[in-house]
This record gives sequence, structure tokens and C-alpha cells, in this order.
Amino acid sequence: MSTTTKKWYVGVDLGGTTIKMAFITSYGEIVSKWEIPTNTEDGGIHITMDIAKSIDHKLNELNQEKEHLAAIGMGAPGFIEMETGFIYQAVNIGWKDFPLKDRLEVETGLPVTVDNDANIAALGEMWRGAGDGAKNLLCVTLGTGVGGGIIANGQILHGASGMAGEIGHITSVTKGGAPCNCGKTGCLETIASATGIARLATEAVAVSNEPSLLKEQFDTLGSLTSKDVFEALAKGDHLAERVLDETASYLGVAIANLSNALNPEKIVIGGGVSKAGDALLEPLRTYFNQYALERVASSAEFKIATLGNDAGVIGGAWLAKQKLNQTHY
Amino acid sequence: MSTTTKKWYVGVDLGGTTIKMAFITSYGEIVSKWEIPTNTEDGGIHITMDIAKSIDHKLNELNQEKEHLAAIGMGAPGFIEMETGFIYQAVNIGWKDFPLKDRLEVETGLPVTVDNDANIAALGEMWRGAGDGAKNLLCVTLGTGVGGGIIANGQILHGASGMAGEIGHITSVTKGGAPCNCGKTGCLETIASATGIARLATEAVAVSNEPSLLKEQFDTLGSLTSKDVFEALAKGDHLAERVLDETASYLGVAIANLSNALNPEKIVIGGGVSKAGDALLEPLRTYFNQYALERVASSAEFKIATLGNDAGVIGGAWLAKQKLNQTHY
Repeated sequence: MSTTTKKWYVGVDLGGTTIKMAFITSYGEIVSKWEIPTNTEDGGIHITMDIAKSIDHKLNELNQEKEHLAAIGMGAPGFIEMETGFIYQAVNIGWKDFPLKDRLEVETGLPVTVDNDANIAALGEMWRGAGDGAKNLLCVTLGTGVGGGIIANGQILHGASGMAGEIGHITSVTKGGAPCNCGKTGCLETIASATGIARLATEAVAVSNEPSLLKEQFDTLGSLTSKDVFEALAKGDHLAERVLDETASYLGVAIANLSNALNPEKIVIGGGVSKAGDALLEPLRTYFNQYALERVASSAEFKIATLGNDAGVIGGAWLAKQKLNQTHY
Repeated sequence: MSTTTKKWYVGVDLGGTTIKMAFITSYGEIVSKWEIPTNTEDGGIHITMDIAKSIDHKLNELNQEKEHLAAIGMGAPGFIEMETGFIYQAVNIGWKDFPLKDRLEVETGLPVTVDNDANIAALGEMWRGAGDGAKNLLCVTLGTGVGGGIIANGQILHGASGMAGEIGHITSVTKGGAPCNCGKTGCLETIASATGIARLATEAVAVSNEPSLLKEQFDTLGSLTSKDVFEALAKGDHLAERVLDETASYLGVAIANLSNALNPEKIVIGGGVSKAGDALLEPLRTYFNQYALERVASSAEFKIATLGNDAGVIGGAWLAKQKLNQTHY
């Protein structure tokens, strides 16, 4: 048994509001997990130092030395060059041309591997979650944004410039769609992210005259979240139903079209919005079946991600482990 | 040098109207190529015998023995199980639950490998054509139907049940689209295939009152083909321009959406419709750039397939060669 087998990997999952971190064994078991807030001030310049300090703090707390850590695997939102760990752009964080891998290696003294946050979530679900065993897997993460991770022939796809899996920027509305962070309009992200669902709900209450829990909520609070939509839906609110139906229809078309091209065995839906469970999955499956080829639909199993918020850190650890093994051999 | 290196491979590319065949060296050079009509009578039952006889006839003509042939690699339209070479359905041919590999092996006495016609075209273009060297390649074949072949991380994708690459059945029109052979409506194939373009042109002349070459052609002949559209376009016909713009817009959205997920280095457009060249490629690129992420668009190079009608037989030979090498090792 090599010495690294006994060491821990650090999984880091950077989101727009929090940074999730964990120490993870080489078998994918979480030893300790925690999170810190994402400091997006000054263009996100403090984030790598925050992570380094937090790792040291946690080691102290657990009475462990730095030598117990083998490597860091980190997921970040945005457009990343895998080889160099360079972030071209991460709009939710504020990074532009940010050398994430280099900075984090300098500040932690550990080897760092970086991938897209949605890719590490897909890898986590494949390693220890809902995707168990699937060599052709589509993972769609519905969070603040919409991310995707594609595993085909057993490998995560990166594409020609690390952009593969950018499912959130599939154009769902070709004309007159809402503006997206990426600069385009009508992206799936503007409809199926938590933010997108809140936007659709706010638009729906503005034009609807029918009595609705969602409308009451809006009149009281002055704004709506995707959580409000799912809570109103659980109480049978028709307006919330229509909002979710709209989301499910666009998401269903997008996933069906991708599936006609990729023919996945498992489609794993993760991220905060996936907590809605069957309320989302049932209409989604109906629309998917309508737009996917029959043989594509019958081969594909929808699953809610089972690792929840841990998918990213576990996938990060998997990435770090794979990279270290490649380097050793 | 193994004895098979000197042998020829037989590439067979089955289409709705003709069967293209070629004897090909292990370096991908065509020794002899020819075609026979596709006999779709009696549910396509005569096709494998026609191929076997035609191979023997050609060997005679070239004064060669059967021993000079190593294996057959064949592309067929429809839904195929790669492992067994079983065709679930090939609507243009008339096959349903047809054991293609088994039948052709019995009738020719040669080992047969079968794949989707669009996949072998993609493999051909990768081996000897426009896709040279690209490990991430999207090949879109615009013929009687619309096929696709996806190469990611250097491998052709088959998916969970051999359905990967069915780009023609991406839903382009979600509501009120034209019926497709596959049983759905609004598929890309109903818009961007030769048949689809002819359909759009026929619809356009029916509702247009403006003077148009295309309309004159229709009034004379009673019907239109995609070739008529491209000929009228070359003469500056506005109606033909609008028809092609519609095709290019839907094709551009579909390819951009796929590219946001796959991030290909090369996008190779093949099939009969691709003979239109820049008349198709220019509006297509414009729509693609509009809907693809900037970094995805800047990484992707559009190319017209260079092997033309030979892509399928060359890709078939590549497939046969790969399979034989796998079996030998």
C-alpha cells in the first residue's frame, strides 16, 4: 500500500456564495467537511488565501499535520483551461484571467487540480453517487447557474478548449430570451437555474390576476425565490405549477436534444433546485419522453443526485486522486 | 508486416437510393469504387445478397481472388446495435429487426462490422478527410436524412444503446413541426435534409406571391428538390435565399447547442446538401456564432467534408481494420 493511500485528499467546491471543503479518503469517504463564505470582494482575489487558511485551521482542529494531505481537487464555476488550471472567466466570482491552480498551489503547498464545478459534481456522482457504474452519464446541476458534466465512454468530456458540458448555455429561447451572464440571451440558465425560476415566477405574478399563494408571497416580500415556487407548488398553487411546467418543458427539450446526440444511460439532476425532487422530475420526464427518440428515452434513467452538496467535494477528491495516480505512474 | 496489411478492406455505405462500395488498402487508399441501386423491395431483404454478388463481380473484373479481402466495414442508416450488427429499424430501407452483420457474413464469408452510416462518414473524414487530427469532431451529414457522428476524446460515441449521434432527431420546432420518419415532429431532419429543404421550398412557393425562379420551377415541374433551391440561390433568387436562411438558422442553433455541450475542434458538414458549399456554410456560421458561447465558437472550425461520397466507404474500411486489429491482439 502506497503512503498516499492513507493520506487524505482535499475536495474544494467553489460556489457563488459558499466554498464547500472536505478531507476525503482515497476510497471517497468524507472525514470532515465544512464551508466558508465566498468573498467576491476585489474581484475574488482573497478566495485562494481564504481556502489555504481554512485548510490549516481545520487541520489544527483535527490535530493533524499538513503532511497528511495528498493533494487538492477543486471545482470552480466558469471557463477553465484544464491543463493549467487557468480561469478565463468566472462571472459569479468576479475572476477574469485568474491563475487559480498556481495561486492555490503557492498558498497551500499542495498539488492542485482544477476542473469545472459541474464536471466535478458529475465525477462525484459517478464515483460514489447516483451515477454508479454508468459509462455514459449526463449530469445537470441546477444551482445559481446551470452546469453540466458529460461522461461518455467512461470519460469526462472537456472538448477542444475545456468548454464541454456548458449545458446551461444551450439556447432555449432563440428570439427575445432573457439576458444571460454569458452575454447571450435565452440560455437554459435563464430558465432552469434557481435564479431563472425566481425570474419566471416574478414575471408570472406580474401578469396574472388569479388568486395565488405565490402572488401573496410576492406582495408581502416584494420578491420571490425558487424555494417560494416549490413551497407554493407543494400547497397546490396553480401559478407555481405553471412556472415549474415552463422550466420543465425547456429543460426537457434541452436534455432530450442532448440525449439524442449522446444516448446517456443515466441522467443525474443535481444542485439546489433538484431538492424539489419529483415535483420537478415528473414533468421533466414527460417532456423528455416527448422530445427524445423512443430508444434514447427507454435507455435513459433519470435520477436525483444522491450526494447532494457533497458531490463537488467528492468529485474534487476523485480528480485529485486520479491526477496524482497519473503523475506517479 | 502481417498478411492483412496487404489485403483490401471492403467499405460499404448503404443509402436510401444507392449502395456505395469500395476496395480500400490498409492505408485508406481506394483501389476501386462502385455503386449499385438499393433494392428496398420486400422490406429490403435482397440487399445483403446484392452486396455479396456485387463484391464477387468486382473481384472477377479485377482478376482477384476472394482471399485478397480482409473484412467488410459497413454503414447503414437507422438504429443499430454495434456489438451484434443488428438493425432495430432503418425506415428508409424498410428493415426492422434485421440481423445485418449475420446475414452479410453468411453471404460473403467475410467478417463484417456494422455502424451507423453517419458514424462511418465521421470516421472516414477523421482518417483521411477534413477532420484530420481532430480528437473532438462533430460530423453532420445532410443527405436524404440528417445524420451525425460525434468523436470526443478521440473516440466515436455510441452511447448506452448505440444511439449516440442522432443529431437529425434533435427537436428544432417544439410545437407544430412537420412529421418526421422517426414518429416525432419538428426534428432537424425535417428542415435540414435534402427532403426537408425541398419541403420548405414547396411550402414557401405556396404562400409567396412574389416573382421567383423557384416558383417558376415549381409551376413548370409540379415539385421542387433541394438542388432546385441551390440553383435558384446561385442565380440570386430571394425566395430560395429565405428557404436556405430558415434551414441555416435551425441548423445553426442545433449545432451551436451541441457544441456548447461538446466543444468540438472541427465541425464537418457532409452529405449531398453540403455540395452547396459556402452558400450554406456562410449563413450557418453566422447563426452558429450567434448561439454558441464565444469560446466555443472561437475553438470550432467549420469544414465541408472533403471526401464527399467516399467518406462512408473509407470510414467503413477504417472500422473493419480497427475491428480486425482488436481481434488479432
